[in-house]
Amino acid sequence: MRNLVTIKDIAKNLNISVSTVSRALRDTYDVNQETKAKVLETAYQLNYKPNYNATGLAKGQSHNIGIILPWITNYYFSTVLTGIQQFAYSKGYNVILFLTNDSPERELSIIQNLSIANIDGLLVSISSNSDSCSHFQNIINEGIPIVFFDRVPSSISTSKVMQDDYSGAFAAVEHLIENGYKKIAHIAGPKGLCFTEKRLQGYLAALKKHNLPIREEWIIFSGFSQEYGENDMYELLKSEEVPDAIFAVNDRKAIGAMIALKNKKIAIGKEIGVVGFTNDPASTIISPSLTTFAEPAFDIGHKSCELLFKHINKKNFIYEEVTIPGKLIVRESSRSNIFSS
Amino acid sequence: MRNLVTIKDIAKNLNISVSTVSRALRDTYDVNQETKAKVLETAYQLNYKPNYNATGLAKGQSHNIGIILPWITNYYFSTVLTGIQQFAYSKGYNVILFLTNDSPERELSIIQNLSIANIDGLLVSISSNSDSCSHFQNIINEGIPIVFFDRVPSSISTSKVMQDDYSGAFAAVEHLIENGYKKIAHIAGPKGLCFTEKRLQGYLAALKKHNLPIREEWIIFSGFSQEYGENDMYELLKSEEVPDAIFAVNDRKAIGAMIALKNKKIAIGKEIGVVGFTNDPASTIISPSLTTFAEPAFDIGHKSCELLFKHINKKNFIYEEVTIPGKLIVRESSRSNIFSS
Repeated sequence: MRNLVTIKDIAKNLNISVSTVSRALRDTYDVNQETKAKVLETAYQLNYKPNYNATGLAKGQSHNIGIILPWITNYYFSTVLTGIQQFAYSKGYNVILFLTNDSPERELSIIQNLSIANIDGLLVSISSNSDSCSHFQNIINEGIPIVFFDRVPSSISTSKVMQDDYSGAFAAVEHLIENGYKKIAHIAGPKGLCFTEKRLQGYLAALKKHNLPIREEWIIFSGFSQEYGENDMYELLKSEEVPDAIFAVNDRKAIGAMIALKNKKIAIGKEIGVVGFTNDPASTIISPSLTTFAEPAFDIGHKSCELLFKHINKKNFIYEEVTIPGKLIVRESSRSNIFSS
Repeated sequence: MRNLVTIKDIAKNLNISVSTVSRALRDTYDVNQETKAKVLETAYQLNYKPNYNATGLAKGQSHNIGIILPWITNYYFSTVLTGIQQFAYSKGYNVILFLTNDSPERELSIIQNLSIANIDGLLVSISSNSDSCSHFQNIINEGIPIVFFDRVPSSISTSKVMQDDYSGAFAAVEHLIENGYKKIAHIAGPKGLCFTEKRLQGYLAALKKHNLPIREEWIIFSGFSQEYGENDMYELLKSEEVPDAIFAVNDRKAIGAMIALKNKKIAIGKEIGVVGFTNDPASTIISPSLTTFAEPAFDIGHKSCELLFKHINKKNFIYEEVTIPGKLIVRESSRSNIFSS
């Protein structure tokens, strides 16, 4: 009984086109605010409810997509999710959220419990120690497309969206070199993650290009939190030869390293330069402010969702691997070392 | 064809009870890790898929709950959502996420487009200028329970979960008074939000109790961002009588105020004390570190979800209003003013 009111009734009531009403209800940004407000008000007055089954896209059935993420209490993932949510909403799709807490067991349990009749596709950033990805391949085999982003498995052929981890790391390290730093250490991510490896390779390539030393004791692999960064920095300060700069795999760990340096009364940006990766808002709050390679988090969410809809709507869509560029943002933590040594 | 494998098959295969298998699959934390791993592995080998329709709760149909939030790119909401997601997941429920971007138009559009056949209940934190709440009342009237949290409308009778805004503000301001501050300003939230009003009342009550001056020019209402806090602080510094302490409605605005004070070379915690509200991780990163009233964000998510399931499962469940206490965390930004004046 609920669906007797259609968008035609709203259009007729307002004397505007059905497509304008449709776009206003989908909040597609190409309808002016006044019209949108009128449409929403009229829809509300008439007690209009959308009938998804009648307006279904080519293949989509449930109008739900699932998102599997390690967590959302950091800037990067919450911003990616905002990009996903905005795109999905503009297509009239719901976003169902699953958090793995970075646990491969939980990830497997989510996939096992997934009611695939209830979703048209999945967006996934895998957990750190997800050693086998066959559970994802199973889902794809059942006809549910998956697009991976950020933390992507190399073993599965489907669309993937990444930032340019290699070039970002290369640019970050070359920036330190151009500012006179010569003994550059790397506080890396956990081993086994694709982006840990790519950022490491970018770091190594920049050092090689400029004939700077590569020392095993200057490369530390550990978890993502600020505490890991702080502990890693204390370790580096114990090195036989202490580095004069740090490239950290993310801003949280860079900030941890800065806290260690502050505790040891070492002048950041003078004695030891620091560059991070993310552009977390905290990078402008800490003093000195943190130079960082800004990840295009919102765009990664948006693009991943766009590709997923291509998979959902076009049978046999050829998968794409998309790399979205970021940019280096120079702040105080990497001030020139040229004149201080 | 897919649901031929049941949890009985898994139980038989492992020679354990059906209820243990069920709990392992639901990840309910009362099953040991080894058993859980075996169950997941066996479920995976047997290609088990849960059949939600067969295991439905008393009233729930879709095994989905909807969450409507202003945004998730801040610590508070991303932590609340993590609490919600964890509780819902433990009950075998999916979380469908909607973001209003703090826009009442978008909020109305979300409600208009909501496919209520697809959700069993809603958790909502309303947008700042949500002037009418009748769209939510309509949803409740259609039999979909709603629990509001944090930003709650006073006009709707249903369960609500809040932190103790009044007592938190009172404790924050009394702490400043006990540390010797006498001219305390309030950088408030936007007018019209319930918690803006409650934190304002807590602030006023503490001043009254200690017979301290209340000046209209020392109370500024504005948006949530750091920039608002910074601008509000510049305004306060232009007051006829400049305050000697600031109580800010949230940490972001407190941090904005601290940035303004740093720009003006005013010693934070000596000349002017600052206290925030949230316990955002940034409050420990900024220097001096920020004293703040810590909100129980995770518990608010958890409790809201728990109440929603009571509404879903018990017909005529009497609504509850729950206030969860937080605690004052004293750091450097409110160091004693007693000896410096």
